[in-house]
Amino acid sequence: MALIIQKYGGTSVANTERVKEVAKKVVKYKKEGHDVVVVVSAPAGMTDSLVKNAYEITNNPNKRELDMLLTTGEQISVALLSMAVYELGEKAISFNAFQIDFRTTSDHTKAEILNIDTKKIKEKLTAGNVVVIAGFQGVDENFDITTLGRGGSDTTAVALGAVLNADEVEIYTDVDGVYTADPRVVDNPKKLKEISYQEMLEMASSGAKVLHPRSVEIAAKYNINIHLRSSFEDIPGTIVKKGDEIMEKAQVVGVTSSKNEGKITLFGLPDKPGTASKVFSTLAKAKINPDIILQSSSINKDLNNISFTVKTTDLKEAVKITETLKEELGAAGLAYQDNIAKVSVIGVGLRTHYETVSAIFDTLAENQINIDMISASEINVSCIIEEKDIDKAVKALHAKFIDLGE
Amino acid sequence: MALIIQKYGGTSVANTERVKEVAKKVVKYKKEGHDVVVVVSAPAGMTDSLVKNAYEITNNPNKRELDMLLTTGEQISVALLSMAVYELGEKAISFNAFQIDFRTTSDHTKAEILNIDTKKIKEKLTAGNVVVIAGFQGVDENFDITTLGRGGSDTTAVALGAVLNADEVEIYTDVDGVYTADPRVVDNPKKLKEISYQEMLEMASSGAKVLHPRSVEIAAKYNINIHLRSSFEDIPGTIVKKGDEIMEKAQVVGVTSSKNEGKITLFGLPDKPGTASKVFSTLAKAKINPDIILQSSSINKDLNNISFTVKTTDLKEAVKITETLKEELGAAGLAYQDNIAKVSVIGVGLRTHYETVSAIFDTLAENQINIDMISASEINVSCIIEEKDIDKAVKALHAKFIDLGE
Repeated sequence: MALIIQKYGGTSVANTERVKEVAKKVVKYKKEGHDVVVVVSAPAGMTDSLVKNAYEITNNPNKRELDMLLTTGEQISVALLSMAVYELGEKAISFNAFQIDFRTTSDHTKAEILNIDTKKIKEKLTAGNVVVIAGFQGVDENFDITTLGRGGSDTTAVALGAVLNADEVEIYTDVDGVYTADPRVVDNPKKLKEISYQEMLEMASSGAKVLHPRSVEIAAKYNINIHLRSSFEDIPGTIVKKGDEIMEKAQVVGVTSSKNEGKITLFGLPDKPGTASKVFSTLAKAKINPDIILQSSSINKDLNNISFTVKTTDLKEAVKITETLKEELGAAGLAYQDNIAKVSVIGVGLRTHYETVSAIFDTLAENQINIDMISASEINVSCIIEEKDIDKAVKALHAKFIDLGE
Repeated sequence: MALIIQKYGGTSVANTERVKEVAKKVVKYKKEGHDVVVVVSAPAGMTDSLVKNAYEITNNPNKRELDMLLTTGEQISVALLSMAVYELGEKAISFNAFQIDFRTTSDHTKAEILNIDTKKIKEKLTAGNVVVIAGFQGVDENFDITTLGRGGSDTTAVALGAVLNADEVEIYTDVDGVYTADPRVVDNPKKLKEISYQEMLEMASSGAKVLHPRSVEIAAKYNINIHLRSSFEDIPGTIVKKGDEIMEKAQVVGVTSSKNEGKITLFGLPDKPGTASKVFSTLAKAKINPDIILQSSSINKDLNNISFTVKTTDLKEAVKITETLKEELGAAGLAYQDNIAKVSVIGVGLRTHYETVSAIFDTLAENQINIDMISASEINVSCIIEEKDIDKAVKALHAKFIDLGE
């Protein structure tokens, strides 16, 4: 008998028919003798629809009230799922965050988890209930409702796995695992049986939409295995787990891409200490987080250029801020473009295996793809290229490292 | 400067445009210098839609989970309204029941209010906020979410008026006050400027759907004046207040009707003590509450007939129970019908003014309407008649007592 955390996303509870299917799966585990804690998201589409309502009222919704609004979808899901479990003859009880003292910071719309009281959950499990918990939400010290950011139900599930010392955390979703590339771009991506936390984080931050990154960070911190699998098919998915157990040599696990990238360049900045810091602290105040940053000398040795990429949703504001900085710092010019994209190759030990890095550049060159900017970490080599080349780049790199690599 | 409680029903917050209109009204009062506490219902249609979802899953939804489900609509309304108030330049803060310790009994779907902590509400009012509170909901001692029954937001508003010692409780709705009869039946009903708590209760229980009866009971207990008025037009409505301030003589304030009535008769019951008690205690166990009860002797002096009316929604179950009782009690027969209706004349002192009661019967007789059963209280004379005659009865009694009565 094990303690299993199962998380079901919005598509899995999109309507009452699907809720009944989830209940069947939950009850199957319960009848096998396991303790089951279920975390659910809002029904698919509901959160988007509520956000739309908020913006019909104001362009600048109060964040406390936005959290109050957006946590209703999960509450609907937990209630309906509990009813469906009862209908199948097992006991169930649903909880909102405030009912299990799921405490977070007060940072509305992006709160961090502080503490979870497991007493009530354990009592209800012992009494034979399936415990159904609303994902995504928390309460702060004033009992104000907070949220963990979009996709935060994954984080709820993994955090519960940690505090309850669960045997397994299963994340059920509409894909059946982590793939070496996006199936919409590459014809024959391979499903990974296992992936390390670090690689999963890099995959996620490089554009693969599978797990909420914070859920992976918490899993890594508490060494919780996450089983990412399909809601619709009963087949094994991908286990996200500690890297050193599975990794012995540098190995590419995936190729990801992101099209929503914009680039800004400040030309001819006087070479003075604190210039770069000024640029990035000003952006940080506006909550704009540059992804790749490149500082380079121009022909005139006393002048520098600084380029950085941001999400296209932030581009407009970032340009406005940079315009002001241009005057203030005495830069010669400013340019920006939104037709760029990022391709990333993910795998532990990449950067220290120069032959792999060099093979990335060779592959892109052979395919007449110009590299505009490069950033490399221990397990991620990313290249900024023109948006029109992005699918070609993913295909070529996947063919090079995955198809031929095994 | 006054403390005003305003309650807006589902049609007033049916969509974001209407929420903005409510915000304008709220902000107008706030800018005049008043403290404003607003109670809102779920957007029109949402609660019905959630109930439908629940019954798609099970014919017997767990009541705790049903309350969990049905309280989400109000949470959406309070969040959107608070955002809309911010957009108009005033501060607002929304609260669910758990955030203001709005404690109730654990009777899910029909909980009773035990206590409300006013500290946080008062603090937020003092800090200049419009305080927006989710109607209909409470929490019990375990922090489980409860509801006060359909229409319970009126009760929330009046209870808050009582504990906050408010200067006025305004209930905004889609009608502009209490009328002497249903405008869909009678051509020229009159709007009442004032009505007593008792008369209002009788109007409500006799079929007029204006205020949740429990809200009127609480208002009477704490002597709170309720101003019932239109969401859409800025005109005075009807004040519900203490009776003895406004009533000096017997006066008819309204004629109401209810079509959803069924009647059951047990014939030839042996005349033994405890027979009637057995019938009604058995029905009570099934939560069936007879409205009008009539016990009469038959030609054989040792046998009685018992007739009673129930809501048509309860008729089927009541017949089933009565079939069993028929055997048990040795009754000669059982009959039931669902094509009956109730017409009621409401007004303080009615029963003791025999000329009024007799005028009711005369009026119905003049219009060839047969009276099947009669019940009379201090302020309510009700007659069970055939359903086909109900509109004619209301028109005739309204013409007699209201049109000619002034």
